[in-house]
Amino acid sequence: MTAHKRPIIFISNDDGYEALGFKRIIECAARYGRVIAVAPEVTQSGKAHAITMYEPLHLDLRRDEENISVYSCSGTPVDCVKIAYDWLLPELGLKPDLNISGINHGSNAAINVLYSGTMGAAIEASFYGAPSVGLSLDDHRADADFDATIEFADRLIPALLGRELKTPLCLNINVPIARPEEIKGHIVCRQTRGFWREEFFCRQDPRGRNYFWLTGGFCNHEPEAQDSDEWALKNKYIAIVPIKVDLTDHSRIDELKELL
Amino acid sequence: MTAHKRPIIFISNDDGYEALGFKRIIECAARYGRVIAVAPEVTQSGKAHAITMYEPLHLDLRRDEENISVYSCSGTPVDCVKIAYDWLLPELGLKPDLNISGINHGSNAAINVLYSGTMGAAIEASFYGAPSVGLSLDDHRADADFDATIEFADRLIPALLGRELKTPLCLNINVPIARPEEIKGHIVCRQTRGFWREEFFCRQDPRGRNYFWLTGGFCNHEPEAQDSDEWALKNKYIAIVPIKVDLTDHSRIDELKELL
Repeated sequence: MTAHKRPIIFISNDDGYEALGFKRIIECAARYGRVIAVAPEVTQSGKAHAITMYEPLHLDLRRDEENISVYSCSGTPVDCVKIAYDWLLPELGLKPDLNISGINHGSNAAINVLYSGTMGAAIEASFYGAPSVGLSLDDHRADADFDATIEFADRLIPALLGRELKTPLCLNINVPIARPEEIKGHIVCRQTRGFWREEFFCRQDPRGRNYFWLTGGFCNHEPEAQDSDEWALKNKYIAIVPIKVDLTDHSRIDELKELL
Repeated sequence: MTAHKRPIIFISNDDGYEALGFKRIIECAARYGRVIAVAPEVTQSGKAHAITMYEPLHLDLRRDEENISVYSCSGTPVDCVKIAYDWLLPELGLKPDLNISGINHGSNAAINVLYSGTMGAAIEASFYGAPSVGLSLDDHRADADFDATIEFADRLIPALLGRELKTPLCLNINVPIARPEEIKGHIVCRQTRGFWREEFFCRQDPRGRNYFWLTGGFCNHEPEAQDSDEWALKNKYIAIVPIKVDLTDHSRIDELKELL
């Protein structure tokens, strides 16, 4: 019997390398393979697909065990993936079999996929060949209860490692706030239609200059759509949305040929 | 004969309010309507759809003429759009009829749409109802020749203002480096398939700590595809790609129902 090569699992996030969700998914993934993780030094929520073009980046080894290596990177979530795949992993002679980003503290369902650093990292990692998963829990709290997410990850990770899947593959997975026994199941569904509307409060700083701070709420345009990720979350299902990165609206190409 | 209301045109960018491409499109748009512009204080290239959640924002009036108002915002391109639509424009009692982001110094064709702050702003603006256009020139230089882009904008802006178009509508328009007479026309096309591969150079700072700097090249997976935006640009056509923001890969929902 030949030794079976242990899978390589690459992990990133946007909440930073000290976040609880990140530590939880690392412990989980290490049951199935060798973990290499690169995450931001500090929180990078809302950084979307941003990259750092005009500043240098730093990379620091933070944890080094037989089966788990964790680095921090001074850049964005996408920088973490790029520096891992285009520098660190080749240096280490490793090629991941699976990518995970998260577990995010907060939902990335609906249009949040566009603003999310977690999903920025998940999407970017998918460009390098192996299946990629963004995992988020619908709870922003630092001490959120990740047990239901971990229970699901314990089924998901071996399932993804166990079969040949057409790539690029990227999944946006969101888990409702619930104890594991309250989760009703999972639904493979689509991104909910809707947008954020912000309220900026305007105040004066100690020198009398106005400053603004972003705050707002999500407007769900189809709260009753049972094939949408927001509906799944609201009804205690785990929502799984397959993601693609061709932003072309193919349905409008012919119409727009008449514009000019 | 009743007085015809002048259109309101909202303009943003990611190169900052002092960029040449921004000044050129403002002068052009002011021929067709009242311009309200909000752009970043400094360059925000590569900032994608990033938003600023953990810091306050500043908004400063930089130019105030009868037909042109220009503000700078300390945040990202998407912050500029949000603060305009959710604070400034309501304060001014204005509702834009058209959104333009750019003119960017550098192409946003192919997968660049995902990293681009110009397209981040264009996409975000489209969420507020009026048609939205990201305009980019395939030339990074600060003193790039925008004449061909302006000549095209002089046809595009009245065309977009002159008819009822189904919204949300967002266009990613890229213009090749060429004098106006060298432009062969425009093609409504799709996002080219391909990804960036980065090379990080690693050097030591004066204190002996390693630092990394992102650099890389675009790998076009289909250089001969005549319906792709990269092909159009290479062949001196203006590329027009309609953009949608449902990232769901609908074609894979059924397949993935079998995963778990």
